[in-house]
Amino acid sequence: MSTKKLIAEKIKQSVKLLDEFNLDCWLTFVRESSINGDPALAFLSETALTWHSAFIVHRDGEAHAIVGRYDVPSIEALGVYTSVTGYVEGIRQPFISHFRKKDPKTIGINYSKGSEICDGITLGMYLTLQDLLSETSPGMEKRLVSAERMVSALRERKSAAEIERIKAAVSVTEKIWDDVARFMKPGMTEKQVADFILGQMKLHDVRSGWEVSSCPAVFAGIGVAEAHFAPGDKKIQKGELVNIDFGVRKNGYVSDMQRVFYVLDEGEINPPAEVQKGFDTIVQAIRKSKDAIKPGVKAFEIDAVARKTVRDGGYEEFAHGLGHQVGIFVHDGTAILGPLWEKYAQKPVQLLEQNMVFTLEPRVKIPSRGNMSIEEMVMVTDNGAEWLSSPQKELMLIK
Amino acid sequence: MSTKKLIAEKIKQSVKLLDEFNLDCWLTFVRESSINGDPALAFLSETALTWHSAFIVHRDGEAHAIVGRYDVPSIEALGVYTSVTGYVEGIRQPFISHFRKKDPKTIGINYSKGSEICDGITLGMYLTLQDLLSETSPGMEKRLVSAERMVSALRERKSAAEIERIKAAVSVTEKIWDDVARFMKPGMTEKQVADFILGQMKLHDVRSGWEVSSCPAVFAGIGVAEAHFAPGDKKIQKGELVNIDFGVRKNGYVSDMQRVFYVLDEGEINPPAEVQKGFDTIVQAIRKSKDAIKPGVKAFEIDAVARKTVRDGGYEEFAHGLGHQVGIFVHDGTAILGPLWEKYAQKPVQLLEQNMVFTLEPRVKIPSRGNMSIEEMVMVTDNGAEWLSSPQKELMLIK
Repeated sequence: MSTKKLIAEKIKQSVKLLDEFNLDCWLTFVRESSINGDPALAFLSETALTWHSAFIVHRDGEAHAIVGRYDVPSIEALGVYTSVTGYVEGIRQPFISHFRKKDPKTIGINYSKGSEICDGITLGMYLTLQDLLSETSPGMEKRLVSAERMVSALRERKSAAEIERIKAAVSVTEKIWDDVARFMKPGMTEKQVADFILGQMKLHDVRSGWEVSSCPAVFAGIGVAEAHFAPGDKKIQKGELVNIDFGVRKNGYVSDMQRVFYVLDEGEINPPAEVQKGFDTIVQAIRKSKDAIKPGVKAFEIDAVARKTVRDGGYEEFAHGLGHQVGIFVHDGTAILGPLWEKYAQKPVQLLEQNMVFTLEPRVKIPSRGNMSIEEMVMVTDNGAEWLSSPQKELMLIK
Repeated sequence: MSTKKLIAEKIKQSVKLLDEFNLDCWLTFVRESSINGDPALAFLSETALTWHSAFIVHRDGEAHAIVGRYDVPSIEALGVYTSVTGYVEGIRQPFISHFRKKDPKTIGINYSKGSEICDGITLGMYLTLQDLLSETSPGMEKRLVSAERMVSALRERKSAAEIERIKAAVSVTEKIWDDVARFMKPGMTEKQVADFILGQMKLHDVRSGWEVSSCPAVFAGIGVAEAHFAPGDKKIQKGELVNIDFGVRKNGYVSDMQRVFYVLDEGEINPPAEVQKGFDTIVQAIRKSKDAIKPGVKAFEIDAVARKTVRDGGYEEFAHGLGHQVGIFVHDGTAILGPLWEKYAQKPVQLLEQNMVFTLEPRVKIPSRGNMSIEEMVMVTDNGAEWLSSPQKELMLIK
């Protein structure tokens, strides 16, 4: 499915969601979107916007765009908007005229304290919007409400075409895992391994799933278990673990996976007992949490399953949520499989829904060995969960 | 100069600017910055931030960072912060404790109705900030003010290291122009030319200066003069103009230039008179506007010079500003060499300052020939302007 068709599909879906969440219209309001993008924009345009731009989807099924003159051709080329209005000097006139005509009673905009993915509008643009609406009709600015729930559903209830794209990204990632397993040898640096993976991504014509400085992230041995930092000159050593975290972006959607490798020590043919136990604990935590997933369950309950498995194994709890959603961004959607921590706000109390895509990434530390961490990807189905990745079942051994 | 040093230099500059603009501190407050970045972040971190992150520069010279635990190593590695505080569950406690201790009387944050580059904070993050500050000390949220003027100065008054980076980007761009002139032949499509330029960028190990779908932009002949749309299957034809617009990103800073080519018709050895006249008008508009640039002049006055030259030549005025600033982003800074149009807000009435870097890009249309447009880059000096690009003096002829 082309990106144009995908956008058409998502706009259609957004109309239905306006009905479900009882909103008259949904407004995405951006300028210079290469600088300050709105995460919802990917569902509305293939290209960045320069001047003030308004994308307005109405409950009656109409979808309108008001953009700077130079952006008209690329928006028109999508073929999904009821009208595309261009301007030269400013958006004021066409904007006011549109809102006077349609006179929506509620206007959902992209802001949220609790969900960054639904929080696209900047404060300056919000103030501009208030000015424009109050000029349209006194008091109209009071009709602005958060579109958080509707935008969350739009991102989280993935269409068949979106799932296909994520599967394609996972498929490339898994090919690269095989190559990495063959490539890695003791004595190589984290950086060498990361460069190899970047080379493989190029071969497969895909980009890093997130910023390249930590995608891939390669953690050799102990003392480096901080997930977001760049690969360095640390060497892969016998008797230690290597944990790798990366994903790729393919056709606009990403994968996010981790694998863990053990470097056999002199004379070893199997990993030492404490390493194997750690691995088994992580595999079990992932399996048990996957088994607990089904629509209607609260997200934090899934995190709790994995957290308990890790604790029962005698390990310290991991300092992050068990899993996040994946989509256009590597951290996508509102619901998170995380504990009830302040920074997660209301995200962990969201109910799971069909076609949400999550990672499962528990972690334990094995003293003097390193980071034991695997990350799989699953999709919520009508009565459970389905693997999107082929789960790691054995420690990959490096000689 | 390394990016770490550049960040250290800009933070030092920001301390001085706090004094100049009478602010007690400058706060940049972000989360998931790969999704919703703040354009000021490039001066504060080399890497993206995941959880709620606060970067606070104080007038007393201190600079503090409060970030999620996994982001601590990359921020500490910068070596520029007085303290880097990590957290696991939420930013509330370390944030409140910091602001209670420092008790700033004014807190500049990144928002602006008129300048997108100073408008980084989202509405959701602003509301969160209000909550946090009112908890710190009742009424403290009223100390929030826009840091627009300070952030504008930080971006616009470029350091020697920043100018060097822009010059390096211009230098690569100019090498590619030479290659393009040799490569282009009648019958090639816009897309072929764009692909060639992308290939040359790869050879030079640089990325597109802005989103790749319109960088390079290639406009063959008439009816395609909309600057932001993608190269297509239109063919380069004899007797028509080809206008190309692209820039590269090198070491985090970009270039942005346009060149114009004429494809000689059968039997022609020189361009036709109306083509040459259009070219001369554009060259003159650029030269005259450059000559008018000096510190203290209002930005729109420069635009007016070029606009008058074009009008005096009997052409229709271009539907965009004469020039924008360039830096980390291709559209950078607040001041714009543009007319007093609504969408430009207060940007055209800004005063020019030393070390601002601008494009100059007037345009006229030559009926049945195409887009006559050149884009040069200049830097404001202590008493005038200096070319950063080597200005196009003759129409490049394609046979």
